[in-house]
Order: sequence, then structure tokens, then C-alpha cells
Amino acid sequence: MNTLKNSVRTILRGSGQVMFQENAWTGLFFLIGIFWGAYSSGTPQVAWGALCGLIASTLAGVFVNDNPNDCDAGLYGFNGILVGCAFPTFLADTWLMWLALVLCSFFSTWVRQAFNNLLAPYKVSSFTFPFVFMTLIFLLTAKTLNEMPEAGLSKPVLDATFEYGAFAPSFVDLVVYWLKGVAQVFLINNWVTGIFFLVGLAVSSIGAAIWAAIGSAICVAFAILYKADPSSISSGLYCFSAVLTAIALGDTFLPKNWKTWVWTIFGIIATFFIQAGCDALMEPFGLPTLTGPFCIATWLFLLPAYKFAVKKTPKQPAN
Amino acid sequence: MNTLKNSVRTILRGSGQVMFQENAWTGLFFLIGIFWGAYSSGTPQVAWGALCGLIASTLAGVFVNDNPNDCDAGLYGFNGILVGCAFPTFLADTWLMWLALVLCSFFSTWVRQAFNNLLAPYKVSSFTFPFVFMTLIFLLTAKTLNEMPEAGLSKPVLDATFEYGAFAPSFVDLVVYWLKGVAQVFLINNWVTGIFFLVGLAVSSIGAAIWAAIGSAICVAFAILYKADPSSISSGLYCFSAVLTAIALGDTFLPKNWKTWVWTIFGIIATFFIQAGCDALMEPFGLPTLTGPFCIATWLFLLPAYKFAVKKTPKQPAN
Amino acid sequence: MNTLKNSVRTILRGSGQVMFQENAWTGLFFLIGIFWGAYSSGTPQVAWGALCGLIASTLAGVFVNDNPNDCDAGLYGFNGILVGCAFPTFLADTWLMWLALVLCSFFSTWVRQAFNNLLAPYKVSSFTFPFVFMTLIFLLTAKTLNEMPEAGLSKPVLDATFEYGAFAPSFVDLVVYWLKGVAQVFLINNWVTGIFFLVGLAVSSIGAAIWAAIGSAICVAFAILYKADPSSISSGLYCFSAVLTAIALGDTFLPKNWKTWVWTIFGIIATFFIQAGCDALMEPFGLPTLTGPFCIATWLFLLPAYKFAVKKTPKQPAN
Repeated sequence: MNTLKNSVRTILRGSGQVMFQENAWTGLFFLIGIFWGAYSSGTPQVAWGALCGLIASTLAGVFVNDNPNDCDAGLYGFNGILVGCAFPTFLADTWLMWLALVLCSFFSTWVRQAFNNLLAPYKVSSFTFPFVFMTLIFLLTAKTLNEMPEAGLSKPVLDATFEYGAFAPSFVDLVVYWLKGVAQVFLINNWVTGIFFLVGLAVSSIGAAIWAAIGSAICVAFAILYKADPSSISSGLYCFSAVLTAIALGDTFLPKNWKTWVWTIFGIIATFFIQAGCDALMEPFGLPTLTGPFCIATWLFLLPAYKFAVKKTPKQPAN
Repeated sequence: MNTLKNSVRTILRGSGQVMFQENAWTGLFFLIGIFWGAYSSGTPQVAWGALCGLIASTLAGVFVNDNPNDCDAGLYGFNGILVGCAFPTFLADTWLMWLALVLCSFFSTWVRQAFNNLLAPYKVSSFTFPFVFMTLIFLLTAKTLNEMPEAGLSKPVLDATFEYGAFAPSFVDLVVYWLKGVAQVFLINNWVTGIFFLVGLAVSSIGAAIWAAIGSAICVAFAILYKADPSSISSGLYCFSAVLTAIALGDTFLPKNWKTWVWTIFGIIATFFIQAGCDALMEPFGLPTLTGPFCIATWLFLLPAYKFAVKKTPKQPAN
Repeated sequence: MNTLKNSVRTILRGSGQVMFQENAWTGLFFLIGIFWGAYSSGTPQVAWGALCGLIASTLAGVFVNDNPNDCDAGLYGFNGILVGCAFPTFLADTWLMWLALVLCSFFSTWVRQAFNNLLAPYKVSSFTFPFVFMTLIFLLTAKTLNEMPEAGLSKPVLDATFEYGAFAPSFVDLVVYWLKGVAQVFLINNWVTGIFFLVGLAVSSIGAAIWAAIGSAICVAFAILYKADPSSISSGLYCFSAVLTAIALGDTFLPKNWKTWVWTIFGIIATFFIQAGCDALMEPFGLPTLTGPFCIATWLFLLPAYKFAVKKTPKQPAN
């Protein structure tokens, strides 16, 4: 009985760790948000994929059995749940896709250890990069394997163009985009899901919820200022990476002082430009950036390790 | 006389080290296989390129004269022999191509030391990545230098398509593809060469030969299961990276227990998907992946360094 | 008064550090060369961008206030001045471009610390890579942000072709291309600027000036030998990366002996091929390589750290 309870807690924490919260209730709110969003858009396979990837990647951690603390903290789950959201979002719903989803979830846990070992001397962790790296590889195979048919990837193009034209969002529109920006952390295009995620964050850390909200808001503002593609803005696609950067820098990994607040704001702005740049970089491949821009920006703002940005008693990296 | 004998042994070991065997006889079998394949297909320049690259890269090692043990073990040769196979396979046979081949072979030896130094803290080595990295750079120049005319590169495309259609290989066909998968480690598309390579491996290590065979077989199976491009399957192009992963994980770098066997199988499967993904990644550039997918997969499966996967008395990396 | 004098010296040294010279007079010559070239070609915004980026990136260093010696030596300025040259060269002259230029200059200073920390165990520094990395990201955004209109980027293509045809430069032409190769270190297409740069180098180090001249000359020769695109040859675009490699290897970071001279020559030749390869790599994205090929080549030739190539009393990396 206790084992079951512990297992469920581990699984739920795996969900919460996507936004650095070792908190089962947070993870539960995230899962509810995912199910709400997936069923609302008629793609339940995304929600079940999330659950499947979460469990598979945790089991992969149990197989190697190297670090019970990591397992308990949910650190074997957060890459897998993202793999599980991404596969059914971009690939067609065949059994060979599901086999690949399970394999990629396994790999994401093991590759996390590989990347964490690479980064260990620098006192940063691999964040969601194992998910990004392995998922991009599998999404690429959709171009060379007939039994991995794509079903949501962009067409590869050399010179994308778009009309900014008559884009004039109302205040309510802006609120919707802002909430979707939070929801897109799990690839969900639904503003209600964004509320579930913010509430889930607040259950664990008010600071995390506030910074998530700030991160998304700044990116909506910059995307409109620099006239980004309206369809991307209105789906929250300029925001989700910065939501993670904002929580990581503003709440999780840095000490709290006025300089780190300014630093976090710059980190959010950098994430906006890195997101816009990576979108362009991916165009010839027809791939999404996933949360890669968050990883790049957060590494770049943690690695300098300036005096004002180093915790006296360093907390363990959350993921 | 002794010097000559030692030199020949060093050269042959350089050939053997491509598949991690510090064994001159193995290297001799590999060279015979290369000559057989190259002459069979009417491209003798590939065989002479291999010999030329092998000697050039070894001489580059003698020039820097830093590590006589590496030299003696053939570790200055294995990148060069691959450079020498790749250049005449993908570029036209002009004297400026041969100058570039020699330069690239030099660079491959020196760059190996650069990459090995980068990876030293992580107790993994650079494998064939110096060959992959430098050769891709030189192949790219075929697009910008008129005197490096390409003669076997794919045309860059954004959206490759292929017919799986009526592909229904017989058992004998499958055996041929499987053997070609081994031969393609040296870019040779010839099943007899595959036999030479397997025999050469067995001379040095039965385990290496068996794992090479398993690696190629698993990839043929996965490529057919996921319906990859039939022309790539039948040329062994889905297998060669996994052949190297299989030997590296199954025979060379890990202790031998049931967990590392399972681990090696997963490593082979990961290599299959990384191969398929990298093929797609390279399409807009019209480049081959070379053995890059092997390097990526083997790093990812060695770097976690889980307890079950670390040798008690660590053997020196073979290359 | 003294503060002002020190500030000006710091700013000028930032300019000089682009070519590894901690010398305010060198920096002044470089700035004069930039202004001459920019006004000659009717693009004064390039010169003012250089000054703006130089000051912004230095102020970003003052904000984090971590290492007064670096600040004093001009090491906070050299990435920013290059950012400031590149933005107005490739992007249209709008106020949002200037905002981005200032942000990118800030980031270049902080990212330098991130990359330097990554490379610290290997005793090499990040050179101009912070400039290259962040600028490429911002140039990519020109494809996805309407208010970052490009104004000098190539069109993305899959299969570039060019005519070598009747290209038969006179000796005077060759001298002009050679001098432009030096000038292009700061993205200036003007042979007089090249003279200013060589004189500026000689003020600080005769050896640096000589190696810069040799680096450019070797690349003109190789580009003609391998029949590169005549329009790139005549703009000095095959030379600027090798100019930096030549100074770095020949004058700044290595001990001086016959072996390191040969080593530097090989480094220059490697830079030529890496430049040609990276040009091709960038074609599908329509991006310039900036000084990326110099960074790659110089890392590859410093990292092996062979005995003949390590200074007895290692001088601090110049940037």
C-alpha cells in the first residue's frame, strides 16, 4: 500500500518537476491541465501519451537503479512526460509510434544522466534538454521512416513569410495568449490549462507562479513590439520557453536580490530572441524548437556564475 | 628491418582500430575487404585513398611526436583510413582532391587529440568523430570550391520522399543487406567485404564479431519494421553505425553481465533511430552522416556510467 | 579626469582586443579604419553601431562588476564592437534594430563569461564566439520578426552555384583582396581599412601584423587554387577568419619555434577549408559565418596542447 502511494507520489512529482517543483499536488494540477486541454481539442492521445511517457521514463530509471533520491524526487519523470506530450502532437497515432514513444522515454531518462554528467563540473543540470534532443531525433525520423508518419509538423521551408497585417488583439485576447503561453510548456494550446498550471505552481511556490506569469507577459509584449507571426503569438508559442527561464532564474536557482531580478528580466528577454531565432533555424527541417530555447538561455544566464548570482548554500538543482 | 616491421604493424593496427581492435591481422583483413570492394565496384581510388589516408594520418602523429604508445597502437591511423575511404567515394578524382585528402588526414589525427582532451574528464574518447567532423567540413566545401567537384553526394533537398511499395526481400537478400551493413563501416557497398570484416574481427575477438553481426541484424529488422527507404536498407546504410555501437558497448568498453547486454541492445536500437534522424537532418545539406550516429549513441550510452556499466579495472579506451 | 582617461583607454582597448592586442593605440587605429570604411561605402551606421556596441558591452561588464582586470584590459568590449559592426551591416536601420543591437551587446559580454567558464578546464578562451553565437541568433530572428527587417543577408538557398569563368586578377587586384581580407575582420570591405588595421597591429606587435598579412595571403592563394567564388575572393571573405587564426597561433598563444610556425601554417590552411565549409553550411539559412571558422580552427589547434605548442610560463589568454 505504501509502495503504491510512494509510486503515485513519484509519478506526480515527475510531472511537477517539468517546472522545477518537487510537489505531487503541483504535478496533479499539471496532469489535470493536460487532460483538460487534450480532451478539449479532441486529441486525448496527447494526455495518455503524457501519462505513458511519464511512467515509462520513471521505469527506465528504476531499471538502472542508480540513484533512489532522484527517482523519489520525480527526476526520472519530467523528460518522459514531455516526450509523451510531443509524440502524439506531431506524429500519427499508430502502434509503432507508441513503441517509439516508449523507447524515447526510456532514452530520455538515461540521456539525462549522460548530459548531467557532462554538465556536472559547471554546476548546472541538463534541464529538459534530454527531452528536446531525443524528441527532435525521433521527429526527424518521420522524414525517413514510413511507419513514423508525421501529423502536425510544419512543412520544411527555406523562406517562410507571414502577414502581420490587421493583427489588433483586444485586452481579453492578450490575456488568452498570455495563459496559453504558460500552457504551451506542455505543448497544450488552451488558456484554461494555463490557469491550472499557474494554480499548480502557486500550490508549491508563489514566487514560481508569479515569475511564470511575468515571463509569459514579457514575451507577449516583445512579440507584439517586434511584430512576430500573429498565429504564433495567439497560440502562446513565443512564451513557453521564457516561462521556464523565468521560474528557473527568478525562483529556483538564484539568490533573491534586486540584481538577480534584473538578471531574470534580461534572461526572459534573451529567451524571447533565442526562441525567435531557433524558430527560424528549424524552418528548413520543419521541426518545432520544443523547450530548447529555455535550456540555452538558462544555461547562458547560470553559467557566468557572477557573485551576485550564486547562492550561499547552493540548493541542489531541481532537475 | 625491425623498424619497417613495426611501421607496417602500426599501419595495419590503424586499420583494425576502426572497429576497436589493436590487431594487425584484423587490420589486414579489413584492408583486403576494402580492396576487394573497391575493385569490384570499379572504384579502385577508394582503396588507394584508404591506404593514403592511413599513412598520412599516421605520419601526422609522428610529426607531433607526443605519445609513442598511441602511435604504436594504431590510434593515429583509424581516422585517416576513413577519411581516405570517404573522399574518393564522394568527390571527383582530381589532384586537388588528393591534396585535400592528405590535409584532412593530417587534421584528423590532430583534431582527435583536441577532442580527446575535451572528453578526458568524462572518461570517454572521441571515437571516429574527428573523421566525421573534418570530412563533413571538406565535403561541404564541394559546394563552394569549384576544384572540389562532388561525385557521389546527394542533392540537397527539403522534402525527400521515397516509395516503400513492393519491397519484399527474400532471406538471401536479407543476408546480403546484413553483410553490407558491416562492410559500410568503411563505406564499402559489398557483401563479400562484410565477410572479410567479420572474419577480421573474429581473429581478434569472437565477441566483437558476434556483436557486429547482432548490431547489423537488429537494424535490418528495425529498418524493415519501420519501413525505411528500401535502397538504403539494401545498401546496408541503416546498419554500419550500429555495428560500431554494438562492438563498443557489447565487447570493448563495458563489463560483461546481463544488464550490459540489455544495455547494448538498447544502444543498438537508439543508434538505429539516431541514424534515421541524422539522415533527415543532413538532407538540406546533401551530406552523408558518416559514422556520426555511432559516436552520438555510444557517447550517450557510456556517459551515464551507471554502476553496472563501469569496469572494475577500467581498460584504456581502444580509440 | 583620470576616470575619463581610463574609460577611454578601456574602450579603445576593447577595440584592440578583437585582434588580441591590449593596446589603446591599436584600438584607435582599428576604429579609424572602421569609420573610414563605413563612411566610404555610405553606411555610417556601421561605424556608429561599432562604437555603440563597444560602449554597451563594456557597460554590461560594469553592471556585473565581477572582474575589474578584464574590464580594464578591454575584454568586455571586443565582442560588442563586432556585434555593433554586424547588426547595421545585415539589418535595416530602425530603432528596434538599435534596441536589439544594445541588448545583443549586453548579452555578448555575459555569454563570454559563460563560455569562458565552460572552456576554463581546457585552458582556452571563447575568443569571438560570444559575438558569433548571439549575433547569429539575432540575425535568424530577421526571418520571424517583422520589425527586424534584414538588409544585407543572403537569400537562403539549397544549391548555390557561381561562375568562376573569366576571373583573372592582376597583381594589384590581389593586393587589394589581400588587404580587404584583413579589413573584413570587422566586416569592412575596404582595402584602405586593411592598411589601418595592419598599422594598428604593428604598433602593438610586429609579429601580429606579419602573421595577419601571411594569413590573408595564404587564403587568397588557396581560394584561387581551389577556384572559390570570385566575388567572395575579391571582397576578402575567404581571409578574415584566417587572419585571426594566424595572429592567435603565430603570435599570441603559442611559444615561438619552427614547429609552431609549421603548426600555424597548417592552422591557416585548416581555417580556409573550415571557412569554405561553413559558408556552405550556412546557405540554407542565408546567414554569414562571421568569425566562427576562426574560433573553430583556433580551438582545434590549441586544444591538442602538444608539448611543442605549450608556453613554459603560460601568458593569460588575451581574450
